[in-house]
Amino acid sequence: MIIIGEMVRRAREIISMIFFAVLSSATGVTPPYWSRGGGASCSPCLSWRLAAETNNVEPWRTVPAHCFSCIGAYITGGQYQHDVRFVVEQIMSYAEGITVAGDGLDAWVLDVDDTCISNVDYYKVKRYGCDPYDPPAFRSWAMEGACPAIQPVAELFTKLMKSGFKVFLVTGRDEETLGQVTVENLHREGFIGYERIILRTAAEKGRSAVEFKTEIRRRLVEQGYRIWGNVGDQWSDLQGQFVGKRTFKLPNPMYFVP
Amino acid sequence: MIIIGEMVRRAREIISMIFFAVLSSATGVTPPYWSRGGGASCSPCLSWRLAAETNNVEPWRTVPAHCFSCIGAYITGGQYQHDVRFVVEQIMSYAEGITVAGDGLDAWVLDVDDTCISNVDYYKVKRYGCDPYDPPAFRSWAMEGACPAIQPVAELFTKLMKSGFKVFLVTGRDEETLGQVTVENLHREGFIGYERIILRTAAEKGRSAVEFKTEIRRRLVEQGYRIWGNVGDQWSDLQGQFVGKRTFKLPNPMYFVP
Repeated sequence: MIIIGEMVRRAREIISMIFFAVLSSATGVTPPYWSRGGGASCSPCLSWRLAAETNNVEPWRTVPAHCFSCIGAYITGGQYQHDVRFVVEQIMSYAEGITVAGDGLDAWVLDVDDTCISNVDYYKVKRYGCDPYDPPAFRSWAMEGACPAIQPVAELFTKLMKSGFKVFLVTGRDEETLGQVTVENLHREGFIGYERIILRTAAEKGRSAVEFKTEIRRRLVEQGYRIWGNVGDQWSDLQGQFVGKRTFKLPNPMYFVP
Repeated sequence: MIIIGEMVRRAREIISMIFFAVLSSATGVTPPYWSRGGGASCSPCLSWRLAAETNNVEPWRTVPAHCFSCIGAYITGGQYQHDVRFVVEQIMSYAEGITVAGDGLDAWVLDVDDTCISNVDYYKVKRYGCDPYDPPAFRSWAMEGACPAIQPVAELFTKLMKSGFKVFLVTGRDEETLGQVTVENLHREGFIGYERIILRTAAEKGRSAVEFKTEIRRRLVEQGYRIWGNVGDQWSDLQGQFVGKRTFKLPNPMYFVP
Protein backbone atom coordinates (compact mmCIF):
# COMPACT_ATOMS: atom_id res chain seq x y z
CA MET A 1 0.00 0.00 0.00
CA ILE A 2 2.90 2.35 0.75
CA ILE A 3 4.29 1.64 -2.73
CA ILE A 4 0.89 2.25 -4.35
CA GLY A 5 0.48 5.45 -2.28
CA GLU A 6 3.91 6.57 -3.45
CA MET A 7 2.97 5.74 -7.06
CA VAL A 8 -0.22 7.79 -6.78
CA ARG A 9 1.73 10.71 -5.34
CA ARG A 10 4.27 10.41 -8.17
CA ALA A 11 1.48 10.16 -10.74
CA ARG A 12 -0.08 13.31 -9.33
CA GLU A 13 3.27 15.10 -9.55
CA ILE A 14 3.75 13.95 -13.10
CA ILE A 15 0.25 15.03 -14.07
CA SER A 16 0.82 18.45 -12.57
CA MET A 17 4.16 18.70 -14.38
CA ILE A 18 2.46 17.76 -17.64
CA PHE A 19 -0.28 20.27 -16.93
CA PHE A 20 2.40 22.90 -16.33
CA ALA A 21 4.28 21.88 -19.45
CA VAL A 22 1.15 22.24 -21.53
CA LEU A 23 0.35 25.57 -19.90
CA SER A 24 3.88 26.76 -20.50
CA SER A 25 4.13 25.41 -24.00
CA ALA A 26 5.02 27.45 -27.01
CA THR A 27 1.41 28.10 -27.94
CA GLY A 28 1.65 31.28 -25.91
CA VAL A 29 -1.97 30.96 -24.87
CA THR A 30 -1.91 30.41 -21.11
CA PRO A 31 0.11 31.82 -19.49
CA PRO A 32 1.15 34.21 -22.24
CA TYR A 33 4.84 34.60 -23.01
CA TRP A 34 5.20 37.95 -21.32
CA SER A 35 4.14 36.61 -17.93
CA ARG A 36 6.98 34.15 -17.57
CA GLY A 37 10.16 36.17 -17.27
CA GLY A 38 12.25 36.76 -14.19
CA GLY A 39 10.38 34.45 -11.85
CA ALA A 40 7.10 36.28 -11.28
CA SER A 41 4.98 37.90 -13.97
CA CYS A 42 6.85 40.53 -15.93
CA SER A 43 3.72 41.97 -17.45
CA PRO A 44 3.63 45.10 -15.23
CA CYS A 45 7.36 45.63 -15.79
CA LEU A 46 7.00 45.26 -19.55
CA SER A 47 4.39 48.02 -19.35
CA TRP A 48 6.69 50.13 -17.21
CA ARG A 49 9.63 49.58 -19.56
CA LEU A 50 7.64 50.42 -22.70
CA ALA A 51 6.24 53.54 -21.04
CA ALA A 52 9.72 54.59 -19.91
CA GLU A 53 11.21 54.00 -23.36
CA THR A 54 8.44 56.04 -25.00
CA ASN A 55 8.99 58.86 -22.48
CA ASN A 56 5.61 58.52 -20.82
CA VAL A 57 6.97 58.16 -17.27
CA GLU A 58 9.23 61.19 -17.21
CA PRO A 59 10.85 61.92 -14.84
CA TRP A 60 11.73 58.73 -12.99
CA ARG A 61 14.42 58.28 -10.35
CA THR A 62 14.70 54.52 -10.03
CA VAL A 63 13.47 51.36 -11.68
CA PRO A 64 10.46 50.06 -9.66
CA ALA A 65 11.81 47.65 -7.05
CA HIS A 66 9.45 44.88 -8.16
CA CYS A 67 11.00 45.04 -11.66
CA PHE A 68 14.50 44.11 -10.52
CA SER A 69 14.41 40.55 -11.85
CA CYS A 70 12.49 41.46 -15.02
CA ILE A 71 14.82 44.29 -15.99
CA GLY A 72 17.79 42.11 -15.06
CA ALA A 73 16.48 39.35 -17.32
CA TYR A 74 15.95 41.88 -20.10
CA ILE A 75 19.49 43.26 -19.85
CA THR A 76 21.35 39.99 -19.36
CA GLY A 77 19.06 37.63 -21.30
CA GLY A 78 19.85 38.95 -24.75
CA GLN A 79 16.77 41.02 -25.60
CA TYR A 80 18.43 44.33 -24.72
CA GLN A 81 21.28 43.50 -27.10
CA HIS A 82 18.77 42.50 -29.79
CA ASP A 83 16.93 45.76 -29.31
CA VAL A 84 20.09 47.85 -29.57
CA ARG A 85 21.21 46.03 -32.69
CA PHE A 86 17.82 46.47 -34.32
CA VAL A 87 17.86 50.23 -33.79
CA VAL A 88 21.42 50.41 -35.12
CA GLU A 89 20.29 48.56 -38.25
CA GLN A 90 17.61 51.20 -38.74
CA ILE A 91 20.21 53.93 -38.33
CA MET A 92 22.58 52.30 -40.81
CA SER A 93 19.82 51.91 -43.34
CA TYR A 94 18.95 55.61 -42.98
CA ALA A 95 22.63 56.66 -43.15
CA GLU A 96 23.15 54.65 -46.34
CA GLY A 97 20.52 56.76 -48.06
CA ILE A 98 22.28 60.06 -47.36
CA THR A 99 24.46 61.63 -50.05
CA VAL A 100 27.50 63.01 -48.27
CA ALA A 101 28.63 66.37 -49.68
CA GLY A 102 32.33 67.01 -50.10
CA ASP A 103 32.38 70.00 -47.79
CA GLY A 104 33.00 68.09 -44.58
CA LEU A 105 29.87 69.46 -42.92
CA ASP A 106 27.71 66.33 -42.82
CA ALA A 107 27.55 65.48 -39.15
CA TRP A 108 26.22 62.97 -36.67
CA VAL A 109 25.90 63.45 -32.94
CA LEU A 110 26.37 60.46 -30.67
CA ASP A 111 25.94 60.35 -26.93
CA VAL A 112 28.62 58.45 -24.97
CA ASP A 113 27.26 56.62 -21.88
CA ASP A 114 25.15 53.62 -22.85
CA THR A 115 25.30 54.75 -26.43
CA CYS A 116 28.95 54.27 -27.45
CA ILE A 117 30.14 52.56 -24.28
CA SER A 118 28.25 50.50 -21.74
CA ASN A 119 27.65 50.98 -18.04
CA VAL A 120 25.72 47.75 -17.66
CA ASP A 121 28.50 46.22 -15.55
CA TYR A 122 28.19 49.13 -13.14
CA TYR A 123 24.39 49.03 -13.06
CA LYS A 124 24.41 45.32 -12.28
CA VAL A 125 25.80 46.31 -8.89
CA LYS A 126 23.09 48.98 -8.60
CA ARG A 127 20.36 46.38 -9.16
CA TYR A 128 19.80 47.49 -12.76
CA GLY A 129 18.70 50.90 -11.62
CA CYS A 130 16.47 49.84 -8.72
CA ASP A 131 19.02 51.56 -6.46
CA PRO A 132 19.06 55.35 -6.68
CA TYR A 133 21.67 57.25 -8.65
CA ASP A 134 24.95 57.34 -6.73
CA PRO A 135 27.19 60.06 -8.19
CA PRO A 136 30.42 59.18 -6.28
CA ALA A 137 30.09 55.49 -7.13
CA PHE A 138 29.41 56.25 -10.78
CA ARG A 139 32.40 58.62 -10.87
CA SER A 140 34.63 55.89 -9.45
CA TRP A 141 33.34 53.46 -12.08
CA ALA A 142 33.89 55.98 -14.89
CA MET A 143 37.39 56.73 -13.55
CA GLU A 144 38.31 53.09 -14.15
CA GLY A 145 37.88 53.75 -17.88
CA ALA A 146 36.66 50.18 -18.29
CA CYS A 147 33.34 50.71 -20.06
CA PRO A 148 33.14 48.22 -22.91
CA ALA A 149 32.00 49.33 -26.36
CA ILE A 150 28.39 48.72 -27.31
CA GLN A 151 29.36 46.65 -30.33
CA PRO A 152 26.59 47.62 -32.78
CA VAL A 153 27.21 51.30 -32.06
CA ALA A 154 30.96 50.82 -32.53
CA GLU A 155 30.16 49.34 -35.95
CA LEU A 156 27.86 52.26 -36.72
CA PHE A 157 30.59 54.70 -35.67
CA THR A 158 33.09 53.08 -38.03
CA LYS A 159 30.58 53.04 -40.85
CA LEU A 160 29.68 56.71 -40.41
CA MET A 161 33.37 57.68 -40.41
CA LYS A 162 34.03 55.62 -43.54
CA SER A 163 31.03 57.23 -45.26
CA GLY A 164 32.59 60.66 -44.75
CA PHE A 165 30.46 61.94 -41.89
CA LYS A 166 31.97 64.02 -39.11
CA VAL A 167 31.08 62.35 -35.84
CA PHE A 168 30.65 64.42 -32.69
CA LEU A 169 30.52 62.73 -29.32
CA VAL A 170 28.51 64.80 -26.88
CA THR A 171 28.35 63.81 -23.24
CA GLY A 172 27.24 65.25 -19.93
CA ARG A 173 30.33 63.78 -18.28
CA ASP A 174 32.39 66.38 -16.43
CA GLU A 175 35.28 67.51 -18.61
CA GLU A 176 37.65 68.37 -15.81
CA THR A 177 37.51 65.13 -13.84
CA LEU A 178 36.48 62.62 -16.51
CA GLY A 179 37.71 64.13 -19.78
CA GLN A 180 40.98 62.26 -20.12
CA VAL A 181 39.81 58.91 -18.84
CA THR A 182 36.74 59.05 -21.11
CA VAL A 183 38.84 59.80 -24.20
CA GLU A 184 41.17 56.93 -23.30
CA ASN A 185 38.28 54.57 -22.61
CA LEU A 186 36.71 55.40 -25.97
CA HIS A 187 40.05 55.03 -27.77
CA ARG A 188 40.66 51.65 -26.19
CA GLU A 189 37.21 50.54 -27.32
CA GLY A 190 37.77 51.55 -30.94
CA PHE A 191 36.21 55.00 -31.01
CA ILE A 192 39.05 56.62 -32.93
CA GLY A 193 39.01 59.43 -35.46
CA TYR A 194 35.87 61.29 -34.45
CA GLU A 195 35.77 65.00 -35.18
CA ARG A 196 35.45 66.13 -31.59
CA ILE A 197 34.29 65.03 -28.17
CA ILE A 198 32.41 67.64 -26.21
CA LEU A 199 32.05 67.21 -22.46
CA ARG A 200 30.38 69.37 -19.89
CA THR A 201 32.58 72.21 -18.66
CA ALA A 202 32.47 73.72 -15.19
CA ALA A 203 30.46 76.66 -16.58
CA GLU A 204 27.75 74.30 -17.84
CA LYS A 205 27.39 72.35 -14.62
CA GLY A 206 23.99 73.62 -13.50
CA ARG A 207 22.23 73.08 -16.80
CA SER A 208 19.85 70.30 -17.65
CA ALA A 209 21.01 67.78 -20.24
CA VAL A 210 18.48 69.15 -22.75
CA GLU A 211 19.80 72.70 -22.33
CA PHE A 212 23.45 71.66 -22.40
CA LYS A 213 23.09 69.44 -25.46
CA THR A 214 20.90 71.93 -27.31
CA GLU A 215 23.61 74.57 -26.80
CA ILE A 216 26.30 72.22 -28.14
CA ARG A 217 24.22 71.37 -31.21
CA ARG A 218 23.36 75.03 -31.75
CA ARG A 219 27.09 75.79 -32.02
CA LEU A 220 27.58 72.95 -34.50
CA VAL A 221 24.72 74.22 -36.66
CA GLU A 222 26.09 77.76 -36.44
CA GLN A 223 29.41 76.40 -37.68
CA GLY A 224 27.55 75.11 -40.72
CA TYR A 225 27.22 71.45 -39.81
CA ARG A 226 24.18 69.54 -41.02
CA ILE A 227 23.17 67.16 -38.24
CA TRP A 228 21.78 64.17 -40.10
CA GLY A 229 21.33 61.96 -37.11
CA ASN A 230 21.41 62.16 -33.34
CA VAL A 231 21.73 58.95 -31.34
CA GLY A 232 21.25 58.58 -27.61
CA ASP A 233 19.85 56.33 -24.92
CA GLN A 234 18.11 59.25 -23.16
CA TRP A 235 15.25 61.41 -24.40
CA SER A 236 17.23 64.37 -23.08
CA ASP A 237 19.82 63.58 -25.79
CA LEU A 238 17.13 63.96 -28.44
CA GLN A 239 14.90 66.76 -27.22
CA GLY A 240 15.31 70.52 -27.29
CA GLN A 241 16.44 72.34 -30.42
CA PHE A 242 18.70 71.51 -33.36
CA VAL A 243 18.00 67.85 -32.62
CA GLY A 244 19.00 66.76 -36.11
CA LYS A 245 17.09 65.51 -39.15
CA ARG A 246 16.40 62.23 -37.39
CA THR A 247 16.81 61.13 -33.81
CA PHE A 248 17.26 57.58 -32.60
CA LYS A 249 16.43 56.38 -29.10
CA LEU A 250 18.52 53.44 -27.94
CA PRO A 251 16.96 51.37 -25.18
CA ASN A 252 17.98 52.00 -21.60
CA PRO A 253 15.59 50.92 -18.86
CA MET A 254 18.15 51.42 -16.07
CA TYR A 255 18.24 55.17 -15.51
CA PHE A 256 16.74 58.47 -16.58
CA VAL A 257 18.73 61.66 -17.14
CA PRO A 258 16.47 64.71 -16.82
CA MET B 1 6.41 -7.28 -22.42
CA ILE B 2 3.99 -5.13 -24.41
CA ILE B 3 2.84 -3.54 -21.18
CA ILE B 4 6.44 -2.95 -20.03
CA GLY B 5 7.32 -1.52 -23.47
CA GLU B 6 4.31 0.79 -23.23
CA MET B 7 5.40 1.83 -19.72
CA VAL B 8 8.91 2.62 -20.95
CA ARG B 9 7.48 4.66 -23.82
CA ARG B 10 5.22 6.51 -21.39
CA ALA B 11 8.10 7.06 -19.00
CA ARG B 12 10.17 8.53 -21.82
CA GLU B 13 7.30 10.84 -22.74
CA ILE B 14 6.91 11.90 -19.15
CA ILE B 15 10.64 12.54 -18.77
CA SER B 16 10.67 14.68 -21.90
CA MET B 17 7.59 16.55 -20.67
CA ILE B 18 9.32 17.18 -17.35
CA PHE B 19 12.44 18.30 -19.19
CA PHE B 20 10.32 20.67 -21.22
CA ALA B 21 8.50 21.88 -18.13
CA VAL B 22 11.81 22.65 -16.43
CA LEU B 23 13.08 24.42 -19.56
CA SER B 24 9.89 26.41 -19.79
CA SER B 25 9.67 27.08 -16.10
CA ALA B 26 9.39 30.49 -14.57
CA THR B 27 13.13 30.80 -13.98
CA GLY B 28 13.37 32.58 -17.31
CA VAL B 29 16.85 31.17 -17.89
CA THR B 30 16.49 28.82 -20.86
CA PRO B 31 14.71 29.65 -23.09
CA PRO B 32 14.29 33.27 -21.98
CA TYR B 33 10.76 34.59 -21.58
CA TRP B 34 10.84 36.74 -24.69
CA SER B 35 11.50 33.78 -26.98
CA ARG B 36 8.34 31.89 -26.18
CA GLY B 37 5.47 33.96 -27.56
CA GLY B 38 3.44 33.25 -30.64
CA GLY B 39 4.95 29.87 -31.45
CA ALA B 40 8.37 30.82 -32.77
CA SER B 41 10.76 33.27 -31.14
CA CYS B 42 9.32 36.72 -30.70
CA SER B 43 12.68 38.28 -29.93
CA PRO B 44 13.09 39.99 -33.34
CA CYS B 45 9.49 41.20 -33.20
CA LEU B 46 9.93 42.56 -29.70
CA SER B 47 12.86 44.56 -31.07
CA TRP B 48 10.80 45.72 -34.01
CA ARG B 49 7.90 46.70 -31.78
CA LEU B 50 10.06 48.63 -29.31
CA ALA B 51 11.81 50.42 -32.18
CA ALA B 52 8.45 51.28 -33.78
CA GLU B 53 7.02 52.55 -30.49
CA THR B 54 10.08 54.74 -29.90
CA ASN B 55 9.83 56.11 -33.44
CA ASN B 56 13.09 54.60 -34.65
CA VAL B 57 11.57 52.83 -37.67
CA GLU B 58 9.72 55.77 -39.20
CA PRO B 59 8.14 55.54 -41.69
CA TRP B 60 6.80 51.99 -41.88
CA ARG B 61 3.98 50.72 -44.08
CA THR B 62 3.21 47.31 -42.64
CA VAL B 63 4.07 45.13 -39.70
CA PRO B 64 6.80 42.68 -40.78
CA ALA B 65 5.07 39.52 -42.03
CA HIS B 66 7.08 37.30 -39.68
CA CYS B 67 5.68 39.26 -36.72
CA PHE B 68 2.06 38.37 -37.40
CA SER B 69 1.71 35.85 -34.58
CA CYS B 70 3.84 37.85 -32.13
CA ILE B 71 1.93 41.09 -32.65
CA GLY B 72 -1.33 39.15 -32.57
CA ALA B 73 -0.32 37.59 -29.25
CA TYR B 74 0.64 41.02 -27.94
CA ILE B 75 -2.69 42.58 -28.92
CA THR B 76 -4.98 39.74 -27.90
CA GLY B 77 -2.97 38.25 -25.03
CA GLY B 78 -3.48 41.12 -22.60
CA GLN B 79 -0.13 42.90 -22.70
CA TYR B 80 -1.35 45.63 -25.05
CA GLN B 81 -4.22 46.36 -22.66
CA HIS B 82 -1.78 46.40 -19.73
CA ASP B 83 0.47 48.80 -21.61
CA VAL B 84 -2.40 51.18 -22.44
CA ARG B 85 -3.63 51.17 -18.86
CA PHE B 86 -0.16 51.84 -17.50
CA VAL B 87 0.28 54.92 -19.72
CA VAL B 88 -3.19 56.16 -18.73
CA GLU B 89 -2.21 55.82 -15.06
CA GLN B 90 0.82 58.02 -15.77
CA ILE B 91 -1.42 60.56 -17.48
CA MET B 92 -3.90 60.58 -14.59
CA SER B 93 -1.13 61.04 -12.08
CA TYR B 94 0.19 64.01 -14.09
CA ALA B 95 -3.30 65.50 -14.52
CA GLU B 96 -3.98 65.26 -10.79
CA GLY B 97 -1.03 67.57 -10.16
CA ILE B 98 -2.38 70.37 -12.34
CA THR B 99 -4.22 73.28 -10.76
CA VAL B 100 -7.12 74.07 -13.07
CA ALA B 101 -7.76 77.80 -13.39
CA GLY B 102 -11.34 79.05 -13.41
CA ASP B 103 -11.06 80.63 -16.86
CA GLY B 104 -12.03 77.55 -18.86
CA LEU B 105 -8.82 77.57 -20.85
CA ASP B 106 -7.08 74.51 -19.43
CA ALA B 107 -7.17 72.05 -22.29
CA TRP B 108 -6.25 68.53 -23.30
CA VAL B 109 -5.99 67.18 -26.82
CA LEU B 110 -6.93 63.56 -27.46
CA ASP B 111 -6.63 61.68 -30.72
CA VAL B 112 -9.60 59.47 -31.66
CA ASP B 113 -8.59 56.26 -33.51
CA ASP B 114 -6.87 53.80 -31.20
CA THR B 115 -6.75 56.48 -28.55
CA CYS B 116 -10.39 56.99 -27.55
CA ILE B 117 -11.90 54.18 -29.60
CA SER B 118 -10.37 50.96 -30.83
CA ASN B 119 -9.83 49.60 -34.33
CA VAL B 120 -8.35 46.34 -33.11
CA ASP B 121 -11.37 44.37 -34.37
CA TYR B 122 -10.77 45.77 -37.85
CA TYR B 123 -7.02 45.17 -37.75
CA LYS B 124 -7.54 41.55 -36.74
CA VAL B 125 -8.89 41.04 -40.25
CA LYS B 126 -5.88 42.88 -41.62
CA ARG B 127 -3.51 40.50 -39.85
CA TYR B 128 -2.69 43.06 -37.16
CA GLY B 129 -1.19 45.39 -39.72
CA CYS B 130 0.79 42.82 -41.72
CA ASP B 131 -1.58 43.63 -44.61
CA PRO B 132 -1.11 47.06 -46.15
CA TYR B 133 -3.39 49.99 -45.39
CA ASP B 134 -6.70 49.60 -47.23
CA PRO B 135 -8.51 52.97 -47.26
CA PRO B 136 -11.92 51.72 -48.65
CA ALA B 137 -12.03 48.83 -46.18
CA PHE B 138 -11.13 51.10 -43.27
CA ARG B 139 -13.78 53.61 -44.36
CA SER B 140 -16.40 50.83 -44.42
CA TRP B 141 -15.35 49.78 -40.94
CA ALA B 142 -15.47 53.34 -39.64
CA MET B 143 -18.90 53.84 -41.26
CA GLU B 144 -20.26 51.04 -39.08
CA GLY B 145 -19.63 53.25 -36.07
CA ALA B 146 -18.87 50.18 -34.04
CA CYS B 147 -15.44 51.01 -32.60
CA PRO B 148 -15.48 50.12 -28.90
CA ALA B 149 -14.08 52.54 -26.32
CA ILE B 150 -10.57 51.97 -25.09
CA GLN B 151 -11.69 51.69 -21.50
CA PRO B 152 -8.76 53.29 -19.67
CA VAL B 153 -8.91 56.28 -22.03
CA ALA B 154 -12.68 56.58 -21.51
CA GLU B 155 -11.97 56.73 -17.78
CA LEU B 156 -9.27 59.36 -18.36
CA PHE B 157 -11.69 61.37 -20.51
CA THR B 158 -14.30 61.37 -17.73
CA LYS B 159 -11.73 62.29 -15.14
CA LEU B 160 -10.39 65.20 -17.21
CA MET B 161 -13.89 66.55 -17.75
CA LYS B 162 -14.72 66.26 -14.04
CA SER B 163 -11.49 68.08 -13.19
CA GLY B 164 -12.61 71.05 -15.26
CA PHE B 165 -10.42 70.58 -18.32
CA LYS B 166 -11.72 71.32 -21.80
CA VAL B 167 -11.17 68.23 -23.90
CA PHE B 168 -10.59 68.54 -27.63
CA LEU B 169 -10.77 65.48 -29.83
CA VAL B 170 -8.59 65.90 -32.89
CA THR B 171 -8.68 63.33 -35.66
CA GLY B 172 -7.50 62.94 -39.21
CA ARG B 173 -10.81 61.29 -40.10
CA ASP B 174 -12.59 62.98 -43.01
CA GLU B 175 -15.22 65.36 -41.67
CA GLU B 176 -17.56 65.13 -44.64
CA THR B 177 -17.91 61.35 -44.88
CA LEU B 178 -17.12 60.25 -41.32
CA GLY B 179 -18.05 63.24 -39.17
CA GLN B 180 -21.50 62.19 -38.09
CA VAL B 181 -20.82 58.50 -37.65
CA THR B 182 -17.70 59.28 -35.61
CA VAL B 183 -19.57 61.63 -33.28
CA GLU B 184 -22.30 58.99 -32.83
CA ASN B 185 -19.75 56.24 -32.27
CA LEU B 186 -17.98 58.32 -29.62
CA HIS B 187 -21.27 59.25 -27.95
CA ARG B 188 -22.39 55.63 -27.81
CA GLU B 189 -19.07 54.72 -26.18
CA GLY B 190 -19.38 57.35 -23.48
CA PHE B 191 -17.38 60.22 -24.93
CA ILE B 192 -19.91 62.90 -24.08
CA GLY B 193 -19.43 66.52 -23.13
CA TYR B 194 -16.10 67.28 -24.79
CA GLU B 195 -15.49 70.87 -25.85
CA ARG B 196 -15.15 70.16 -29.55
CA ILE B 197 -14.25 67.46 -32.03
CA ILE B 198 -12.10 68.60 -34.91
CA LEU B 199 -11.94 66.44 -38.02
CA ARG B 200 -10.07 66.93 -41.25
CA THR B 201 -11.92 69.16 -43.70
CA ALA B 202 -11.75 68.87 -47.48
CA ALA B 203 -9.31 71.81 -47.54
CA GLU B 204 -6.89 69.96 -45.26
CA LYS B 205 -6.89 66.71 -47.19
CA GLY B 206 -3.41 66.88 -48.67
CA ARG B 207 -1.62 67.70 -45.45
CA SER B 208 0.41 65.33 -43.34
CA ALA B 209 -0.98 64.47 -39.93
CA VAL B 210 1.78 66.50 -38.24
CA GLU B 211 0.92 69.60 -40.30
CA PHE B 212 -2.83 69.20 -39.86
CA LYS B 213 -2.67 68.60 -36.12
CA THR B 214 -0.11 71.36 -35.57
CA GLU B 215 -2.46 73.80 -37.31
CA ILE B 216 -5.40 72.71 -35.13
CA ARG B 217 -3.34 73.11 -31.95
CA ARG B 218 -2.01 76.45 -33.14
CA ARG B 219 -5.58 77.74 -33.36
CA LEU B 220 -6.37 76.45 -29.87
CA VAL B 221 -3.29 78.18 -28.45
CA GLU B 222 -4.19 81.38 -30.30
CA GLN B 223 -7.61 81.18 -28.69
CA GLY B 224 -5.85 81.22 -25.34
CA TYR B 225 -6.03 77.54 -24.45
CA ARG B 226 -3.23 76.04 -22.40
CA ILE B 227 -2.65 72.52 -23.75
CA TRP B 228 -1.59 70.58 -20.66
CA GLY B 229 -1.53 67.19 -22.30
CA ASN B 230 -1.70 65.64 -25.72
CA VAL B 231 -2.49 61.95 -26.03
CA GLY B 232 -2.19 59.83 -29.15
CA ASP B 233 -1.18 56.43 -30.45
CA GLN B 234 0.86 57.96 -33.31
CA TRP B 235 4.01 60.04 -33.12
CA SER B 236 2.40 62.30 -35.71
CA ASP B 237 -0.17 63.20 -33.03
CA LEU B 238 2.62 64.39 -30.77
CA GLN B 239 5.16 66.00 -33.07
CA GLY B 240 5.23 69.38 -34.76
CA GLN B 241 4.47 72.56 -32.86
CA PHE B 242 2.22 73.50 -29.93
CA VAL B 243 2.41 69.86 -28.87
CA GLY B 244 1.38 70.65 -25.31
CA LYS B 245 3.19 70.70 -21.98
CA ARG B 246 3.39 66.93 -22.01
CA THR B 247 2.74 64.35 -24.70
CA PHE B 248 1.79 60.72 -24.14
CA LYS B 249 2.34 57.96 -26.67
CA LEU B 250 -0.14 55.13 -26.39
CA PRO B 251 1.03 51.82 -27.83
CA ASN B 252 0.00 50.87 -31.34
CA PRO B 253 2.14 48.34 -33.20
CA MET B 254 -0.42 47.82 -36.00
CA TYR B 255 -0.04 50.86 -38.22
CA PHE B 256 1.92 54.05 -38.74
CA VAL B 257 0.36 57.38 -39.78
CA PRO B 258 3.00 59.62 -41.39
